[in-house]
Amino acid sequence: MSGLRRLTAGRGLLFGGDYNPEQWPEEVWAEDAALMRDAGVNLVTVGVFSWARLEPEPGARDFGWLDQVMDLMAGAEIAVDLATPTASPPPWLGHLQPETLPVDASGHRLWYGSRNQFCPSSPVYRERALGIVRDLAARYAGHPALALWHVGNEYGQVCHCDVSAQAFRAWLERRYGGLDALNAAWGTAFWSQRYSGWAEILPPRRAPYLVNPTQSLDWQRFCSDALLDHFRAERDVLREHTPDIPVTTNFMGLFKPVDAWRWAAEEDVVSNDCYPDPGDPLAPARAALVHDLMRGLAGGRPWLLMEQAAGAVNWRPHNLPKPPGQLRLESLQALARGADGLCYFQWRASRFGAERFHSAMVPHAGPDTRLHREVRAHGRELRGLGEVAGQPVPARVALVFGWESWWALEEPGRPSDRLRADEQLLAYYLPLWERGVAVDVVPPDADLGGYALVVVPNLFLVADRDAEALTAYARGGGTLLVGPFSGVVDPDGHVRTGRFPAPLRAALGASGEEWLPAAGEVGCRWRDGDTFTAHTWTELMAAEGAEAVAEFTGGDLACRPAVLRHRAGDGVAWYVATLPEPAALAEVMARALADAGVRGEVAELPPGVEAVRRGEVLFLLNHGAATARVDPGGRCEDLLTGAVADGPVTLPPRAVAALRRHT
Amino acid sequence: MSGLRRLTAGRGLLFGGDYNPEQWPEEVWAEDAALMRDAGVNLVTVGVFSWARLEPEPGARDFGWLDQVMDLMAGAEIAVDLATPTASPPPWLGHLQPETLPVDASGHRLWYGSRNQFCPSSPVYRERALGIVRDLAARYAGHPALALWHVGNEYGQVCHCDVSAQAFRAWLERRYGGLDALNAAWGTAFWSQRYSGWAEILPPRRAPYLVNPTQSLDWQRFCSDALLDHFRAERDVLREHTPDIPVTTNFMGLFKPVDAWRWAAEEDVVSNDCYPDPGDPLAPARAALVHDLMRGLAGGRPWLLMEQAAGAVNWRPHNLPKPPGQLRLESLQALARGADGLCYFQWRASRFGAERFHSAMVPHAGPDTRLHREVRAHGRELRGLGEVAGQPVPARVALVFGWESWWALEEPGRPSDRLRADEQLLAYYLPLWERGVAVDVVPPDADLGGYALVVVPNLFLVADRDAEALTAYARGGGTLLVGPFSGVVDPDGHVRTGRFPAPLRAALGASGEEWLPAAGEVGCRWRDGDTFTAHTWTELMAAEGAEAVAEFTGGDLACRPAVLRHRAGDGVAWYVATLPEPAALAEVMARALADAGVRGEVAELPPGVEAVRRGEVLFLLNHGAATARVDPGGRCEDLLTGAVADGPVTLPPRAVAALRRHT
Amino acid sequence: MSGLRRLTAGRGLLFGGDYNPEQWPEEVWAEDAALMRDAGVNLVTVGVFSWARLEPEPGARDFGWLDQVMDLMAGAEIAVDLATPTASPPPWLGHLQPETLPVDASGHRLWYGSRNQFCPSSPVYRERALGIVRDLAARYAGHPALALWHVGNEYGQVCHCDVSAQAFRAWLERRYGGLDALNAAWGTAFWSQRYSGWAEILPPRRAPYLVNPTQSLDWQRFCSDALLDHFRAERDVLREHTPDIPVTTNFMGLFKPVDAWRWAAEEDVVSNDCYPDPGDPLAPARAALVHDLMRGLAGGRPWLLMEQAAGAVNWRPHNLPKPPGQLRLESLQALARGADGLCYFQWRASRFGAERFHSAMVPHAGPDTRLHREVRAHGRELRGLGEVAGQPVPARVALVFGWESWWALEEPGRPSDRLRADEQLLAYYLPLWERGVAVDVVPPDADLGGYALVVVPNLFLVADRDAEALTAYARGGGTLLVGPFSGVVDPDGHVRTGRFPAPLRAALGASGEEWLPAAGEVGCRWRDGDTFTAHTWTELMAAEGAEAVAEFTGGDLACRPAVLRHRAGDGVAWYVATLPEPAALAEVMARALADAGVRGEVAELPPGVEAVRRGEVLFLLNHGAATARVDPGGRCEDLLTGAVADGPVTLPPRAVAALRRHT
Repeated sequence: MSGLRRLTAGRGLLFGGDYNPEQWPEEVWAEDAALMRDAGVNLVTVGVFSWARLEPEPGARDFGWLDQVMDLMAGAEIAVDLATPTASPPPWLGHLQPETLPVDASGHRLWYGSRNQFCPSSPVYRERALGIVRDLAARYAGHPALALWHVGNEYGQVCHCDVSAQAFRAWLERRYGGLDALNAAWGTAFWSQRYSGWAEILPPRRAPYLVNPTQSLDWQRFCSDALLDHFRAERDVLREHTPDIPVTTNFMGLFKPVDAWRWAAEEDVVSNDCYPDPGDPLAPARAALVHDLMRGLAGGRPWLLMEQAAGAVNWRPHNLPKPPGQLRLESLQALARGADGLCYFQWRASRFGAERFHSAMVPHAGPDTRLHREVRAHGRELRGLGEVAGQPVPARVALVFGWESWWALEEPGRPSDRLRADEQLLAYYLPLWERGVAVDVVPPDADLGGYALVVVPNLFLVADRDAEALTAYARGGGTLLVGPFSGVVDPDGHVRTGRFPAPLRAALGASGEEWLPAAGEVGCRWRDGDTFTAHTWTELMAAEGAEAVAEFTGGDLACRPAVLRHRAGDGVAWYVATLPEPAALAEVMARALADAGVRGEVAELPPGVEAVRRGEVLFLLNHGAATARVDPGGRCEDLLTGAVADGPVTLPPRAVAALRRHT
Repeated sequence: MSGLRRLTAGRGLLFGGDYNPEQWPEEVWAEDAALMRDAGVNLVTVGVFSWARLEPEPGARDFGWLDQVMDLMAGAEIAVDLATPTASPPPWLGHLQPETLPVDASGHRLWYGSRNQFCPSSPVYRERALGIVRDLAARYAGHPALALWHVGNEYGQVCHCDVSAQAFRAWLERRYGGLDALNAAWGTAFWSQRYSGWAEILPPRRAPYLVNPTQSLDWQRFCSDALLDHFRAERDVLREHTPDIPVTTNFMGLFKPVDAWRWAAEEDVVSNDCYPDPGDPLAPARAALVHDLMRGLAGGRPWLLMEQAAGAVNWRPHNLPKPPGQLRLESLQALARGADGLCYFQWRASRFGAERFHSAMVPHAGPDTRLHREVRAHGRELRGLGEVAGQPVPARVALVFGWESWWALEEPGRPSDRLRADEQLLAYYLPLWERGVAVDVVPPDADLGGYALVVVPNLFLVADRDAEALTAYARGGGTLLVGPFSGVVDPDGHVRTGRFPAPLRAALGASGEEWLPAAGEVGCRWRDGDTFTAHTWTELMAAEGAEAVAEFTGGDLACRPAVLRHRAGDGVAWYVATLPEPAALAEVMARALADAGVRGEVAELPPGVEAVRRGEVLFLLNHGAATARVDPGGRCEDLLTGAVADGPVTLPPRAVAALRRHT
Repeated sequence: MSGLRRLTAGRGLLFGGDYNPEQWPEEVWAEDAALMRDAGVNLVTVGVFSWARLEPEPGARDFGWLDQVMDLMAGAEIAVDLATPTASPPPWLGHLQPETLPVDASGHRLWYGSRNQFCPSSPVYRERALGIVRDLAARYAGHPALALWHVGNEYGQVCHCDVSAQAFRAWLERRYGGLDALNAAWGTAFWSQRYSGWAEILPPRRAPYLVNPTQSLDWQRFCSDALLDHFRAERDVLREHTPDIPVTTNFMGLFKPVDAWRWAAEEDVVSNDCYPDPGDPLAPARAALVHDLMRGLAGGRPWLLMEQAAGAVNWRPHNLPKPPGQLRLESLQALARGADGLCYFQWRASRFGAERFHSAMVPHAGPDTRLHREVRAHGRELRGLGEVAGQPVPARVALVFGWESWWALEEPGRPSDRLRADEQLLAYYLPLWERGVAVDVVPPDADLGGYALVVVPNLFLVADRDAEALTAYARGGGTLLVGPFSGVVDPDGHVRTGRFPAPLRAALGASGEEWLPAAGEVGCRWRDGDTFTAHTWTELMAAEGAEAVAEFTGGDLACRPAVLRHRAGDGVAWYVATLPEPAALAEVMARALADAGVRGEVAELPPGVEAVRRGEVLFLLNHGAATARVDPGGRCEDLLTGAVADGPVTLPPRAVAALRRHT
């Protein structure tokens, strides 16, 4: 029984949040348990930041309070996701051994008084961390409440100190074997950067001008790996004591510092923290994309929404609240896209500390509040959706995204800082989401066999074998859609010479010779129709077998190809040599979907309404400001209301339907 | 005879400025004295930055030049405000003992070459500073020119070094007694911040993420106290030598680093530096507010405008000059609001140094200039206003403001950074100022007994006893007006649980459960009339006895209270749960004034005209761009012109009238 | 035979670029040589960043590869501009001796991994640098390819470390002799900054507030001199070995850190790097100004355009490409303004390193590209313009500009940061450029004898003798045009007291008493005509013999002089007391040109068309978006096409004509 299934079997969908009883007097704990039960909570995350409480002095242990909490939860039949407390060492560690504190690229030491103040490469920190993890695992192995291990929290620390430099060098030696290979890969012939000894090599630190981009790329690889190595070390200790308890750590969506593809392979359960910005009109699509990414990281299996906010967060400059119904809408969106657990940060709003103004499931004003009533209602209604647990979200479209390419693309010193990997990813996801087309987010080296359409919004860095696989996919009958500035560099960040995108040129039946960032809007025209605009980026392309489906209309690019379509072997390959306005990109996508024979879940989807099928259940979620009517195409039962109806469903703003075909 | 009275008795109103003869050859000094006499100067501040001149090498003394200057001033019958030179130690101190130099939160040492380069907690600096102060006091005790001591200058230095950390710990030990109390107050259960020993505690330094807000709040308290402690040490040395010479230091208005309420209590004379920005249309109201604050700090007694600019300053990116008449208008505004002395930085424009482009009473171009002629005319006209000296500015409205609440509110990690304590203070002051209603600015623990209306624009942090006093005030027949996000935290910065504002809930007859920062404009409607808009901030409120005088009109808050009025005991309490547009806030204020039975000095005040009564004299100041006519309501003599008239007074732009009822 | 003439004699115009063969396998080198020949390349710059390759370990030498390259170039009859590789030391130097790494004003060390990481004052760096230079010079002395020495690269490094402090003190001792003189010059009487010993003196480092402006001014002088001292040391080594090979280093146009007037005097050849921003509509005029500056630095002799881009650069946030024809247009502009060589960074686009996305003469896509075809065509057409080599660009107008004044003006703490020396320079250059009036850019101490008009856009700092020379020039029959805020401080940065501009007051027949930065637009009127607007800056002036040609119309300055014209002796002096809108400044310039009897090269020049005569050849360059017609006034041959025509020439966008009168 794989990761999350161990938790949902017998419990159904998971519902709960971070629980920090150490912030409250014991008399509150009993009220907490009662309120949790009332709200349908069946999973709480405990102990994320309790190192200083568990180990108040070096080597001391104070587990008494946690014993109580674990027993209380066991008694209330609430499972515990028990955290290793290593995200934030106690002040005594930084005080006694300041070399465990991280140092930024300018040489500033970062102090305790906040959180996350550790050098990922510090052996002292590692030893201390594994010590407390070992004792925690030994103590709670076999405890009836223990259901999941939560390692650390939101990994992302970076340190540029000399200890980190030493670890970086060791990592580089493993990667390159010898200095000559490193000098070749880093291109140290440029700007007199040749290294004559390993000891010279440093993290990228504050420097007079642009830093070597391959050094920087490797540094980002190393930083992700150094944290992953720490995760693995904790996980191994935990597995030793509790081989049957799955292990997770919480991602932060499209978070640049951590290559989640590499991490997810080491986890039993993929979990994520997701905080859509209520002020961002694209937030629903952004969240959907991240949910799909989590499902991809989980290999198509369910994942866990570890943290979301019941209301406003507190870390933006201006924190908009969630209007009534938004809490439920966002949570059900995650469910519809593969989450089997819907948890919050945090259970009860803190009175003190840096997050005292972060919303919680129980606000400062108490349980008799609009917010808590929504939480409770949502927790309860999840009981009726238990059949969804474990169900897949089948998709015929793959969206390719990789961290290495992201890192490589966004080095300074490129043609335009305005071309960003995550924004391109969203741009290509958006028209799919708007049509209710299910999408799997996959890594660049994914097996593409099962997909009717493969979309590559940007793959600046591509390995030879991945480019070959994309080419083979298209030639073999697939439909491939590639966005601009892809295929530019190899895994060392070296530009592939010749006309671009060199390794995809044959597949695309087209090639280019110059990247031309645009001053403003650029005019374009469909060969078979209307004009549209593009922006930010253009390329000087020539068709080499492909058809120029759209071309530029103005300036020095007039009549040059803007969008190309190529019959490649048995398949079709598209290339987009600019950033079209959203409606135009949607048109490109519509044509590619037609080539691939893929249609959305619902024939006509009003703007703002999201449609996604999970298992047998079609979820319709209205993110728009207007009431919408959607025809699911047949007689259905709404699992949320029990209503059975034929024909269109009416969805007021923020409403959700969970429809199962009724026979 | 209290502080300033000792100076004005026999001299009348004070007029003068900073005088730095050490920047000029001696032949200029005699010209200075003659020009001063001619301009009516009777007070100069000498020696603010002369440490390196007085002590050219460690332990050396060179008082000769200062003897000469003191004698020269005595001969010219110009009083001297003699400064201790401790605001800027000589370079030799930083060179010999770099640990006396301040360090910022990132660990950067701040060097000499500018000014103010000292660590407030350095015992080395303290010893050196008191050494020169002692000798200065001994030398000039009894000198006929000596009339006032000026300690340091514009205190505000902050240092995060290890010596400061040690002093911070000592301060915390005094505050908390034990570590447990500190851990409780700082909420170190959050994010694993529990301290196991005093030695671990540090100033808030550069950290990976948000810093503990109570640590930060205490740090701000400590920083203000550490400077105050230094001020006291110098003051005590001065008092030992010259018990009859009053002691002051110059504030900088609404300056966040220094809790002026605590400081003013330690001074004999309250003085201030005030530099309204000519490019800011709200500058006249801002200045009036600060003047009223100074009067509040002085306990209603006169205060001293230590520094203002005769023309442009030099420290803004773009320094607008004062148009003709502006110098006089601004200076008389301070007089009208309680200043008994009107001084400038500085007497003669420097040829060198970082402030060479700051205007002065004598410009680079010399005395035969527009600017100096205005200075001279203003100095001379002040002789005719001597009767104002010592007179009070009676007010029936109190405006509550406290530094601790300001510090606490503006910690990062709150619902919205856009809600600022000083801006809220100004917003509530503005409609009072526009109506010519006199206001006392008072601290949160003020005796409110004598006021008809008490306005609390924002009191985020409030002590129990202060909340009780506000409640008692309202219940006892007063009118209380409270702005949003007040009463939120206790003095430790802990959120008060339950519906908010918890400690004022009974007084206000209303309570809320959620703070809801607004995305844009918010529609509102008076229950008895028109609509208006609010912005930035809303709250989810419920009336509990209060009447919803205005309510929100749109979105999820429709029909919820926006402004509430409560008959509380014998009084009335108002609560404003949003940031209304200025006209709407003026309407709230008008209604509260009506409840309180308070009216302005003048029945109909044209826009831009300020009216304030000091003693028997009604000042009318036209800050607007148009000529205005104001009816003072009776036959009056204008002390500035000697003219006697019945009926409306005509005020061209920048004109001032100082009217005394003529019988 | 002076500097550049040694290269062009026998070769004609120079064409080529930076060549970095060490980045490529040897098999590419032969292709490079063939392509270079085909493109008309006759000069390449080699070895700019090859220190780590030449000295792979401390003391080692590896010249083999460079021998090959030099021989290859000699065989291809391509001259080599051989660089000393000292702009970027190898990592081993920073690793073994971190004190050679620069430190910024905040104390951050800047590390290797980029380029330029050296402390200009480090004796260790100096010794290492001269060591490799010595061996390089010894090895290639007499090599047939060696034609020019290129010292370092784009000098501009700054370091605030203790070693630099020691060097600064030595420089100050040489400048001032004694501490008293330094204390007087720096005005250390201000803010208690008096130095009691040399050891106390430091570079301006991070400080609590504004730093002493004279300290800062001297620091900028020192920093330029410290680099120049290093340049001289390398040059002297090179001259010792190869007395007949000229020496250059590449400037960066109006680059603030380096006083190019002092540097140019030490060079045999003046060369420059010029990268106009394709997104900047003023780029053509900016480039023309910089070209004229280079000609000025070269004393009127030809100069070398060492670096330009064939297409887009990579170091702006968004790097616009050059449209077709732009490469040629910009290159010919430099030729027309005195360049005898037109080179690019770089020959072949790098595959790796921080500049891999900088365009090159041979793009990643190879030679069969639009870009390379343009390069090749341009290289070939230059052969037909050989007669231009060595020819002067005669000018009757001088534009005065000095680095010391620039540094002094732009210290913080001045009336307005918005008044900038380089922008004022451009503002006054623009109307001259638009009219096709040739301009020499000259230093403040230039011999003005030969000029009909001398324009001083801003000379904030002026020495007595330079002010006297300007005065004598005007009185002697010249036409002098002076912009605002000139003549304000002496070479110590001390404000000259009395009415301003004190040292030019007599020449201008006018003086002022107050600088009045403006809030917005300011109305003005010609005494003999229309109104116009000015902005940012005004001055309170009075005519003292001059005529107020234009005056302010609104506010407190109404009827005060805005533009003054004075018959000074036998000449005319103009003063502009504000920043007029461009058309109004053009009108001022037109009147001054009329006074001086100076006319443009062409009677009627359409907007966007540049006209400049070099030797016998009139260059017309169309920078505008529209086709233009220009009448050169006679029968001419176009050297670029061979066409001979009478009457107007038609110039499509980006077209160039090189016309020689045809008899």
